[in-house]
Amino acid sequence: MSSSAKPTRWATQRADRIHAELNAGLDVWTLFNPVVFPTAINLGQGFMNWQPPSYILDTLTKEMASRVDLHHYSHPKGRPRLREAISEFYSPEFRLPSGEAEAEGEGKVGEQRQASGRKLNIETEVQITSGANGGIYSVMGAFINDGDGVVCIEPFFDQYNAEILFHGGKPLYVPLLPPSGGGKHDSNDWTLDMTHLESVLSQSSTKALILNTPHNPVGKVFSPTELGEIARLCVKHDILVVADEVYDCLTFDGHTHTRIASFTGMWDRTLTVGSAGKSFACTGWRVGWLIGPNHLVGPARAVHTRITFAVNSSAQEGAAIGLEAATKEKFFETQIDQYAQRRQLLVDALDAIGLDYTVPHGGYFVMADASKIQIPDGWVKENDVPQGILQKEEDYLKAWFIAKVCDVVVIPATAFYSDKGGAEVGKNYVRFSFCKDDQIEQAAPRLKKLVPFLKKD
Amino acid sequence: MSSSAKPTRWATQRADRIHAELNAGLDVWTLFNPVVFPTAINLGQGFMNWQPPSYILDTLTKEMASRVDLHHYSHPKGRPRLREAISEFYSPEFRLPSGEAEAEGEGKVGEQRQASGRKLNIETEVQITSGANGGIYSVMGAFINDGDGVVCIEPFFDQYNAEILFHGGKPLYVPLLPPSGGGKHDSNDWTLDMTHLESVLSQSSTKALILNTPHNPVGKVFSPTELGEIARLCVKHDILVVADEVYDCLTFDGHTHTRIASFTGMWDRTLTVGSAGKSFACTGWRVGWLIGPNHLVGPARAVHTRITFAVNSSAQEGAAIGLEAATKEKFFETQIDQYAQRRQLLVDALDAIGLDYTVPHGGYFVMADASKIQIPDGWVKENDVPQGILQKEEDYLKAWFIAKVCDVVVIPATAFYSDKGGAEVGKNYVRFSFCKDDQIEQAAPRLKKLVPFLKKD
Repeated sequence: MSSSAKPTRWATQRADRIHAELNAGLDVWTLFNPVVFPTAINLGQGFMNWQPPSYILDTLTKEMASRVDLHHYSHPKGRPRLREAISEFYSPEFRLPSGEAEAEGEGKVGEQRQASGRKLNIETEVQITSGANGGIYSVMGAFINDGDGVVCIEPFFDQYNAEILFHGGKPLYVPLLPPSGGGKHDSNDWTLDMTHLESVLSQSSTKALILNTPHNPVGKVFSPTELGEIARLCVKHDILVVADEVYDCLTFDGHTHTRIASFTGMWDRTLTVGSAGKSFACTGWRVGWLIGPNHLVGPARAVHTRITFAVNSSAQEGAAIGLEAATKEKFFETQIDQYAQRRQLLVDALDAIGLDYTVPHGGYFVMADASKIQIPDGWVKENDVPQGILQKEEDYLKAWFIAKVCDVVVIPATAFYSDKGGAEVGKNYVRFSFCKDDQIEQAAPRLKKLVPFLKKD
Repeated sequence: MSSSAKPTRWATQRADRIHAELNAGLDVWTLFNPVVFPTAINLGQGFMNWQPPSYILDTLTKEMASRVDLHHYSHPKGRPRLREAISEFYSPEFRLPSGEAEAEGEGKVGEQRQASGRKLNIETEVQITSGANGGIYSVMGAFINDGDGVVCIEPFFDQYNAEILFHGGKPLYVPLLPPSGGGKHDSNDWTLDMTHLESVLSQSSTKALILNTPHNPVGKVFSPTELGEIARLCVKHDILVVADEVYDCLTFDGHTHTRIASFTGMWDRTLTVGSAGKSFACTGWRVGWLIGPNHLVGPARAVHTRITFAVNSSAQEGAAIGLEAATKEKFFETQIDQYAQRRQLLVDALDAIGLDYTVPHGGYFVMADASKIQIPDGWVKENDVPQGILQKEEDYLKAWFIAKVCDVVVIPATAFYSDKGGAEVGKNYVRFSFCKDDQIEQAAPRLKKLVPFLKKD
């Protein structure tokens, strides 16, 4: 028997798929962590500082105390009660085809289908996932082979990139073009160049598109016209669409959310992703869902089941309670009003200091134009800015500057951009969230400390 | 604009990694589903019919009703409170090296280390995962490249196979050799041929070993001597060990669980997998953990974070409450006594009908020898046995026969075997679980209906 152990190859050997991930350096959430800025008002990460609604929580905690089944395995498909609630609540928005696959000639490509009145089949067309995140990951696992191109509209939720790369896929980026010129803008002033999009979708290796509407971080709610054009391109090039619609319940100013799966030809090509966390203020429950035809949901379920087997049972029950009573409770209408008030507080605070921004039509983020912020000569040296910040684009430094000067944490926009050129746009922005109560009021006076550092128009 | 949509390639096109999975036919859980046998006593799937202990549940439901943070994102590493509780509770069993990596010459390969008294570093050596399952999946994602061999000891938990295949790995099987001859046996009569194991571990493409102790379904608790020998081989061939120890809290008859990570050379090469669900009767919470050195936990965390970002917050809190007070509550000691009583009820029921079995030293399953069961000529035809059963090995038919004749559901053992030869052993067994209260008592008289069909010794 040898007397001592030799060094292990496992100290350095990892799967190829995660090399890029491990070499990426500190991520934005670590750099702008509450531990780093303990007294800051945190308008960074997107989670709420309030509980899920009491009509859910009262029932749920009571049932958890008395029932056994809420503590044990649910079916890998998800709890029937939640799948049923999803089918009841969401089916109309999908304008489902009459059969489980679309029949040829049922409608015009580029237009929304006539609704058949059919409801989602809870055995084949709905899958509960470990958060929306676990859903998107499973879709990539189920459909993406080595070298397959997956299009992300830039800026994009920072998890997409790794989820594609882990499965050997190749992220391809098509930008949302920002509004030109300074001043205040509207989230739908951020536009997609459809010719550019088609040039990428038409490449033979391109297989899928992740489409996020309402959009994080821009707040854009894609219009039926835009979605019709995207649908036309996806049918033409037979693209799988992962429709990340986790902010579906949160649109403002009469902009309503339209589902790309409701367009002719798109039911067969779309997996729609939803989230209880965003809907019911329970980001820590980790309950999401996939909706789509059996031929897409089935393979995604096969992957999801092998990853986590099933999703937390009581949290699924909570989401079901939430959806079942949402209409009676007027929950989403009330929630939209509350978010609209928070949005107003935030844009008022930005107006008060003269920082330009994009008014979001959906979601709970505001992209503010940071290009006016001028960091004084020598400030970086005097303030010991970490290398992790200096290695990144200018927006990281500006977000750091805001945190240091105002004690308000925001997120640099390039966290949502690739390093493939899009950062040229992103480096001008920082993202504020408005999903915290009583925080924007406290942030507003703090943000005034920025005024001396803003370039005059 | 084209008038109607063309058929989609996505009706049939999937990622290569899931082909085997989708072609495998109905799995055992679907075939022996409660819907198929609605009045049956279910001694199949391994989950309890009781609640988590009240010392957890009372506190947890109260805190869920009053706190905000239990409903929102936890840190991707897991909640500090749970990581701390894990470190407090489990550190001694690992006999940690004094530094975060093992120093050469600290001990003899094949022997357990001297404990340094150091505790697990909760920032670098503990990762909370979406169930033990999500942990094992993340380890495969982090370390397994295309073509890498991963050894499974047959029989094995049925999720391993897919988790390896999804990452391009190649499952390799080394059997637990069953006791020879009929009669009653002891789970440690199932043995591992170390020469066979070494012949597989020594192949250049072999990278990892999944080692499950206490073992599902056999109930074997690997002895320190066996583990020492396995450790010696893993150090010699520099093998990554995934130590699936989810039944660590459940050993009987004075057999105590020994952790392979506690052997010289193995800390650097082992990720140990744990489970709140098995420990605290909360299989539906989906809380597990990985314990190991930073160079192994880090990459696994990188994968886990991209899959689900974070784990359900309140369930993590519940697991923390459970571990913090387990010693004071004498929870695990009491739980072992209760399981030992259930085990006794089950083996008494098998003795009463004359079916042979293996007495498990750990876990909550009993492997019963089904080879004595003789299915009458013509029974299959008369009873409309589904094709899904007839396509499988003989143990599927025997489990179906038991379900039909006795209205008791058990699981055919080949569900835990590969189709690479091991099934020759597995086809002789069915697995009974003893993790249900008041069910074994009801199953016992039902099982007597088997007696006329048992071959006499």
